[in-house]
Amino acid sequence: MKIRVTIVQLNAHLGDFDGNLKKIYNAIDIAEKNQSDFVVFPELFLTGYPPEDLVLRTSFLKKNIEYINKIVSYSKDKKTVILIGYIDVEDDAFNSLAIIHNGKFLGKYHKHLLPNYSVFDEHRYFKSGNEITIIEYNNIKIGINICEDIWSPIGPLHYQVLNGTQLIINSSASPYFYGKRKLRKKYLSTKSYDYHCPIVYCNLVGGQDEVVFDGGSIVTTSEGNIMYECKPFEEEIVTLDIPIEENLRTNLQDPRRRHISSTKIPNINIIKISNKIERKTKINVSTKNFSLKREEEIFKAVTLGLRDYIIKNGFKKVVIGLSGGMDSSLVAAIAVEALGKDNVLGILMPSMYSSSHSIEDAKNLAENLGIKYYIIKIENIYYSFVNELKEIFSNTKEDITEENLQARIRGTILMAISNKFGHIVLATGNKSEIATGYSTLYGDMVGGFSPIKDVYKTDVYKMAKWYNKFKGKEIIPQNVFVKPPSAELRPNQKDQDTLPPYEILDEILKLYIEKELSVEEISEKFDKETVKYVAKLVDKNEYKRRQGVIGVKVSERSFGKDRRMPITSKYKEW
Amino acid sequence: MKIRVTIVQLNAHLGDFDGNLKKIYNAIDIAEKNQSDFVVFPELFLTGYPPEDLVLRTSFLKKNIEYINKIVSYSKDKKTVILIGYIDVEDDAFNSLAIIHNGKFLGKYHKHLLPNYSVFDEHRYFKSGNEITIIEYNNIKIGINICEDIWSPIGPLHYQVLNGTQLIINSSASPYFYGKRKLRKKYLSTKSYDYHCPIVYCNLVGGQDEVVFDGGSIVTTSEGNIMYECKPFEEEIVTLDIPIEENLRTNLQDPRRRHISSTKIPNINIIKISNKIERKTKINVSTKNFSLKREEEIFKAVTLGLRDYIIKNGFKKVVIGLSGGMDSSLVAAIAVEALGKDNVLGILMPSMYSSSHSIEDAKNLAENLGIKYYIIKIENIYYSFVNELKEIFSNTKEDITEENLQARIRGTILMAISNKFGHIVLATGNKSEIATGYSTLYGDMVGGFSPIKDVYKTDVYKMAKWYNKFKGKEIIPQNVFVKPPSAELRPNQKDQDTLPPYEILDEILKLYIEKELSVEEISEKFDKETVKYVAKLVDKNEYKRRQGVIGVKVSERSFGKDRRMPITSKYKEW
Repeated sequence: MKIRVTIVQLNAHLGDFDGNLKKIYNAIDIAEKNQSDFVVFPELFLTGYPPEDLVLRTSFLKKNIEYINKIVSYSKDKKTVILIGYIDVEDDAFNSLAIIHNGKFLGKYHKHLLPNYSVFDEHRYFKSGNEITIIEYNNIKIGINICEDIWSPIGPLHYQVLNGTQLIINSSASPYFYGKRKLRKKYLSTKSYDYHCPIVYCNLVGGQDEVVFDGGSIVTTSEGNIMYECKPFEEEIVTLDIPIEENLRTNLQDPRRRHISSTKIPNINIIKISNKIERKTKINVSTKNFSLKREEEIFKAVTLGLRDYIIKNGFKKVVIGLSGGMDSSLVAAIAVEALGKDNVLGILMPSMYSSSHSIEDAKNLAENLGIKYYIIKIENIYYSFVNELKEIFSNTKEDITEENLQARIRGTILMAISNKFGHIVLATGNKSEIATGYSTLYGDMVGGFSPIKDVYKTDVYKMAKWYNKFKGKEIIPQNVFVKPPSAELRPNQKDQDTLPPYEILDEILKLYIEKELSVEEISEKFDKETVKYVAKLVDKNEYKRRQGVIGVKVSERSFGKDRRMPITSKYKEW
Repeated sequence: MKIRVTIVQLNAHLGDFDGNLKKIYNAIDIAEKNQSDFVVFPELFLTGYPPEDLVLRTSFLKKNIEYINKIVSYSKDKKTVILIGYIDVEDDAFNSLAIIHNGKFLGKYHKHLLPNYSVFDEHRYFKSGNEITIIEYNNIKIGINICEDIWSPIGPLHYQVLNGTQLIINSSASPYFYGKRKLRKKYLSTKSYDYHCPIVYCNLVGGQDEVVFDGGSIVTTSEGNIMYECKPFEEEIVTLDIPIEENLRTNLQDPRRRHISSTKIPNINIIKISNKIERKTKINVSTKNFSLKREEEIFKAVTLGLRDYIIKNGFKKVVIGLSGGMDSSLVAAIAVEALGKDNVLGILMPSMYSSSHSIEDAKNLAENLGIKYYIIKIENIYYSFVNELKEIFSNTKEDITEENLQARIRGTILMAISNKFGHIVLATGNKSEIATGYSTLYGDMVGGFSPIKDVYKTDVYKMAKWYNKFKGKEIIPQNVFVKPPSAELRPNQKDQDTLPPYEILDEILKLYIEKELSVEEISEKFDKETVKYVAKLVDKNEYKRRQGVIGVKVSERSFGKDRRMPITSKYKEW
């Protein structure tokens, strides 16, 4: 026995009810054409995810209900049962899945487990559901649930299986970080094996401000195998025939089932559907299972995050300050992949401290990428500032002020170009820099989006290396790889003059930021004074990050909504 | 019968365990000297509030337990029972109140109702308590609870009173917004009346990043009167004798009591304390009840917020760009009140578009305030930018680019002065500007703190007027009040060229932002095209606000943690 399911792994545009509806209708048509029993959309696909404080607007909630009713009308005379994510409004707002069939709104499921950690704030917006939903479809029991609901040993998944469901359909909007794709596959296949129940896991794809959804929707079999995986970081609509075991309860061939008792729990909502589909089409899809290299995966994640930020906000072109260093080189490459070379403008802004090779490297990069570039010198502007500041700065010495001034002149130039031509400035800072405050507020930190904000410097190099290999030629010049990193804001400056070597720095940062280990604990592995110094830099620079531009999360803990540290704090471990 | 309580309305410094401990010891000593039965501290006083993601650090939690143990030791041979806010750690972290007496940790209460709206994220950090705590103190039943616990008809307060408590002690960290002080007094006095039970409400005072705690701790009588109110926006330690009714259960003089049944609910934790204090001192405190004018209240709130931000972060001095306009004039006045005139530096940065009266007004203001100022001209710097941008800007027309350029030159100058002398730059934008994006990112938006970020332009004028009256002389020059607001970034520019009159704008903003009303609904009161235009400006400028500097919340909904709108969104009501 088989259930035919169409998985809709599409890119929703937050708040774009008309645009999302168009995608929904198109996917329903495909599912119907393929004679599917079910078509499943990602979590809150109708509104886009996460809608954040738009949920607090009654007008927004009403509009979402209005559009769900449009889908109900559209479903008239169609055989396929539609499972679509929306916000239900009863005595409160619920993160919900609507069950729609042949012009009728058959019922709804309210998400139980609301994540309120990391980037999530779902307790701010939604009330928890308290009902378990099982669809009896032609006498086959199908459990439906939403995202987090499947990620707990005592959540809805558990109770649905205990009550005899033969298939689980989960609608998700699960943001990417490196490691999650592997974890997800391991977790879902183990759950399927454990409960002896196939799982259809439908995930959102696309970028939304600080997060990117990687898609990679999965179907697992009751044996715990991955039957199909949708493409990562791309849209895909696929129809699959999923094998269902007919009589699970007495299946003595599989002793695992005997451990699953049919405990009844309160508030089981059973929705019965009888449907007759005489199949003409046959579905042949071969097994797919994607495994990307770390560098490639992160590259694809940030590329999608950048593209969607620019495009969904109604822009097309970006401008990047090219220093000849690795960060701006990689960001330019990412931008070209995301938006095309004609939409990327490079600005070289040499100062009196810029080395000639930096200018050469930046030029070579721009030419290799095929992007337009300009050279704008900052020296004269710098001295005009120095001149006007002469009086107030009399009797003071040159210090970091003059370094920051150069960075801010560059920031101002990029913003002027942005204002004049409508290009969005891309910030080029990496996570190691942003963590330690090795960057100038309103200087190199300016921009509308920061593609590698959550990428450590050591990963920046690896991604650049991968990129050249991927392109089959040396797009990012070899010299950029070999020269020591420098901000070039004073003569002979090197990053490593003030920071520990990046191999060490990045490891300490990971333990301190992502694992929240104490300075004591980290010092078991690294030199204590170095650890203290790094922890101090991280703590002291919260104020800069608070004004930092957004970028996409690719690690377990990114700066932004994912890490909410106070600025004012006297707590220190250093 | 009376219970003597010392209320500790002090200013905690987040993460400053040693500093907070010193304040705690000192307050305990005062309570003990006054022969108090109880000394109560604000919510999480030991750590400071809100500790945000520091709670996710095990090392932070451990340190807080270590310091609670110090307080236990310190309490040895003291009669006063100590109620102190800290983070309890069992199987999870709890927002808790410790009950400490004579060298013993007698018990703890875990907060039940965790706010997760507005600026609060308590579900991110804490598990809810499930036990109701009643202290039987010399056979008097005292209910203790934390902040939000008192703000619900079915919360701990309710169950405590139903179980016979004769006094409620609530430990709070309740952030200020205008209107809350009045609401709090009304609510608590009504609750006291309704339950026929006095309430001691001990609130935190002080600024912490985006919020300020206004203190104003209250004691209400069982008749619903306010017996005492601590000073708003100031530290205060006060000892009071609170009248307790001896046998509430049979008090037939008051028919209200008859409605309160002694329903038992599960998990009542009763902590018995016998204590003998032979009183020598007598407490005579007269009734106090503060009522401030709106302008005065907001002025005090932002002054405290600013002072604490600067001081707690280890700074002393600030620098402000003085344009001769109302916003920068008021901010300078606030800074002088917060930090003293010797700690405020004014910078006048006239351009070719600055009117002579602007420079005169700014000079007069600086002289009236007694602050030092410098004049730094931006014209030459401006033309040096224009010169370097000539090639790339060839065949383009002058537009907003050139206006933003001037603002960014000023921002860069202020930051250079900040870097050189270690002064924090104060941003001077008001809420009306920030809401509509009438400001330049990295220009007039630069700074470490933004004192009037949550103050509407119409309130800015009222506060300035109040300030002059309060000082008894015209500190802010009369001309600043009468001239039309202008950014002076092009010839004869006026705010009202592009924005509706502030009286209308501010009302629309309040309904759209604070009340979350739809454009439809607001248009019932105001011209629809104007409402649409304002809503569009608010929506379109989220990206600027996301990089905006922090400032203190004084309204029901401020920009920052209090309003979490997506940048990328196609939802619009305009």
